[in-house]
Amino acid sequence: MNYKLIANYIGNILRIEGLFMIPALLVSLYHNEFKCVLAFGISIAALLVIGQLMHMIKPKKRNIFVREGFAIVSLSWLAISLFGALPFFISREIPNFIDCFFETVSGFTTTGSSILSNVEALSKGLLYWRSFSHWLGGMGVLVFLLAVVPNGKDNDAQSLYILRAESPGPTFGKLVSKMRQTAQILYIIYIALTIVEIILLFAGGMPLFDSVLNSFATAGTGGFGIKNASIGAYDSYYLQGVIGVFMLLFGVNFNAYFLLLMRRFRRAAASEEVRAYFVIIGVAVVIITANIYSMYNGLGEALRHAAFQVGSIITTTGFSSCDFDLWPTLSKEILVMLMFVGACAGSTGGGMKVSRLLLMGKTVGKELKQALHPQVVAPVRMDGKVVNHETIRATNVYVAAYIFIFAASFFLISLDGFDMVTNFTAIAATLNNIGPGLAQVGPMMNFGSYSNPAKLVMIFDMLAGRLEIFPMLVFFMPDTWRRF
Amino acid sequence: MNYKLIANYIGNILRIEGLFMIPALLVSLYHNEFKCVLAFGISIAALLVIGQLMHMIKPKKRNIFVREGFAIVSLSWLAISLFGALPFFISREIPNFIDCFFETVSGFTTTGSSILSNVEALSKGLLYWRSFSHWLGGMGVLVFLLAVVPNGKDNDAQSLYILRAESPGPTFGKLVSKMRQTAQILYIIYIALTIVEIILLFAGGMPLFDSVLNSFATAGTGGFGIKNASIGAYDSYYLQGVIGVFMLLFGVNFNAYFLLLMRRFRRAAASEEVRAYFVIIGVAVVIITANIYSMYNGLGEALRHAAFQVGSIITTTGFSSCDFDLWPTLSKEILVMLMFVGACAGSTGGGMKVSRLLLMGKTVGKELKQALHPQVVAPVRMDGKVVNHETIRATNVYVAAYIFIFAASFFLISLDGFDMVTNFTAIAATLNNIGPGLAQVGPMMNFGSYSNPAKLVMIFDMLAGRLEIFPMLVFFMPDTWRRF
Repeated sequence: MNYKLIANYIGNILRIEGLFMIPALLVSLYHNEFKCVLAFGISIAALLVIGQLMHMIKPKKRNIFVREGFAIVSLSWLAISLFGALPFFISREIPNFIDCFFETVSGFTTTGSSILSNVEALSKGLLYWRSFSHWLGGMGVLVFLLAVVPNGKDNDAQSLYILRAESPGPTFGKLVSKMRQTAQILYIIYIALTIVEIILLFAGGMPLFDSVLNSFATAGTGGFGIKNASIGAYDSYYLQGVIGVFMLLFGVNFNAYFLLLMRRFRRAAASEEVRAYFVIIGVAVVIITANIYSMYNGLGEALRHAAFQVGSIITTTGFSSCDFDLWPTLSKEILVMLMFVGACAGSTGGGMKVSRLLLMGKTVGKELKQALHPQVVAPVRMDGKVVNHETIRATNVYVAAYIFIFAASFFLISLDGFDMVTNFTAIAATLNNIGPGLAQVGPMMNFGSYSNPAKLVMIFDMLAGRLEIFPMLVFFMPDTWRRF
Repeated sequence: MNYKLIANYIGNILRIEGLFMIPALLVSLYHNEFKCVLAFGISIAALLVIGQLMHMIKPKKRNIFVREGFAIVSLSWLAISLFGALPFFISREIPNFIDCFFETVSGFTTTGSSILSNVEALSKGLLYWRSFSHWLGGMGVLVFLLAVVPNGKDNDAQSLYILRAESPGPTFGKLVSKMRQTAQILYIIYIALTIVEIILLFAGGMPLFDSVLNSFATAGTGGFGIKNASIGAYDSYYLQGVIGVFMLLFGVNFNAYFLLLMRRFRRAAASEEVRAYFVIIGVAVVIITANIYSMYNGLGEALRHAAFQVGSIITTTGFSSCDFDLWPTLSKEILVMLMFVGACAGSTGGGMKVSRLLLMGKTVGKELKQALHPQVVAPVRMDGKVVNHETIRATNVYVAAYIFIFAASFFLISLDGFDMVTNFTAIAATLNNIGPGLAQVGPMMNFGSYSNPAKLVMIFDMLAGRLEIFPMLVFFMPDTWRRF
């Protein structure tokens, strides 16, 4: 393992995190939150100094293989989360460091699960940092690094390992031939959509501060609310509608936007994944609306809550417009199943991804066809193209690893003695980067009552979910730590 | 599709079922249950006449391909279940035919889920038939056909499709070169073990009738109790111990017994699956014992209940020695996870099978190793032999199909409005052929309160679980029903 190269990379990431923390410091300053100014000041200083020192370590070789790619990604995410937790801890607004760590990992991984019972008590600067971490984590911090830092020595093949390890979904499509340009295009689309959402929310009467923070959380499909009632606090069809639509937009594969920009409308509309995504959403909304109809005043309100909640869960954002833990079992079960489905690959969302499920379904269908007609060779196709064997195998291995991690986590946190629905949905909500679960971790509850060991398990799960498991698993392989 | 061949096979199976029903008629006669005698008489007559008529249909070609193999297996199981339900219905002891069908499918598939709230009210003849269906279904009815009916025209390759479709596990090992002999050896081991259990139970003071019926249910890893308190009704360390040990024995891959008979002890002991099976049991028993310790009088009682329940669930038998629905969450979650693990391949148990999980775990490990050392080729090995690519692919497809069926069933039965734990464990208990679940379908409850549509979903799941999904899925392929 090329430790120097890894240290060099992480140093770079930490420096960037330090710079990204400055706006939060300014927000604190503006609101006269002196404890927070101090906390951010110390954190920024630490990030810049340690980052600079680490970045000064120069590796002899700059070759990145899968092993280094995995290690860079997983260690970077751990590092930014540990340092990102400092402001919460130094300001003493969250006294337990594990809680600070949990909250920050939940932010960067765009999960949105919180340990806070009263989020409105947090100071503005910390609220800003918390929501901004969603935005940073959504598109990926290493993708950002690739997009902005010119580095002539790193060639494309090497960047690909990192980009692939940090980008969600079974395949990673290069939009253009150059990796760096791909990363830039993705970020430009991301920034543009975020700005449009901020403007639309502000124009609808939401305070600017709230507009910015809620847009960060929507863009990253994170879901940290800045009100105790989450989005339910904004009782406006327009505002909830804007957030609802943007949640869905950020759950779409960004390749589709690129194709739209390139005016290749037909190809953009032909994506099987995007179509399946909207079909699933439509079906779920119809069933839930019918199921919760009697709980609300008329069809409109039921439809609004159903649509908002389905969008929030399938995109793995995790905002809530109402306490869906009070809904009938049927609706709750649909939401739980949507947690596993997740958004499209190549979006900022989590979960297993629609394309993986499509691929699994197609593999089963193919196998059946093959059994009935042994003489016919019918390869699995996606968007008209034959899916290569590697992708199918990777998907199967992902599912297997996913099941093992789920089972192990479910077992470990059950030591805390909560009921089964709480434990099951707590893991579903963290491993799929959703946010809230049901029962004791429902939308109006929080994760604070779990013990520290259980929180560490869920921290692992949030990172495993965001990084699609494999980069996190290499920690457990003794080989990883052997020098070569 | 060669309909005549399929009809011919099913006719043969029905004739055999008619003969197998005769002992139940004799039991009814002995106990002066005249309504049951009549019910069995009519059913046996119907089976023999219809079976004979169908068997007289002579196909032009006797070639069996995968398609015919699947159709023969799935239709045979449906047919024997529909006819097997007749005695319950004709005797009016279970008035709703869907309930009769559910109970019979639960019997043949060795599930053991019951719709009866008071099983002790059932007449002896029906109790006998119900438990005997476990014994028949355990080893497979078509395997029986292969073992006893000499049929010079069916060659080995053709029988293999049927045997494979009916036998649990990712691979089917032929014990000897001839299929028919393999089937015979399996049945001889099965009968011998059953007789030993009957003798041991009877010698321990259990009434003969109970000894026979409980042995049937243990051998098939079925789990229909003949007392309302299931095995808890026999408050004897010895009797519960014998049943516990035999449950574990019937959950072991029968190949191991064959190797023992051949005095190849080392190879029998080297089976990775059997070792993993006992390791999982050991770990689960230790954790549950510690967790439930305070609920019972001392270590002995806690250990006894933990061991019995772990054995009952992992082998997918489903007997209960106590109401484990009252146990703490941790213990209940372990039992729920064991439901999915299931027994060894090639045993009479259900679930996903230990070997499939081993294979999945090894695939993940291999993929990780491959990622870290791209130059090394490390094939997946099981018992020292390289696992071929086909088997791994089949396992992956099985898991994908399993997940889809689970999700669809979970959704469909939730329309009944039960809570989530009930729905989840009801599907886990039926798809894995366990028997009881938790909450409203817990060991002291029953499945009778679900609606008829939900029961039909679970009937499908029980059959899909027993036949390892694929034979049941071909029903949904339009191709299956096209003539050729």
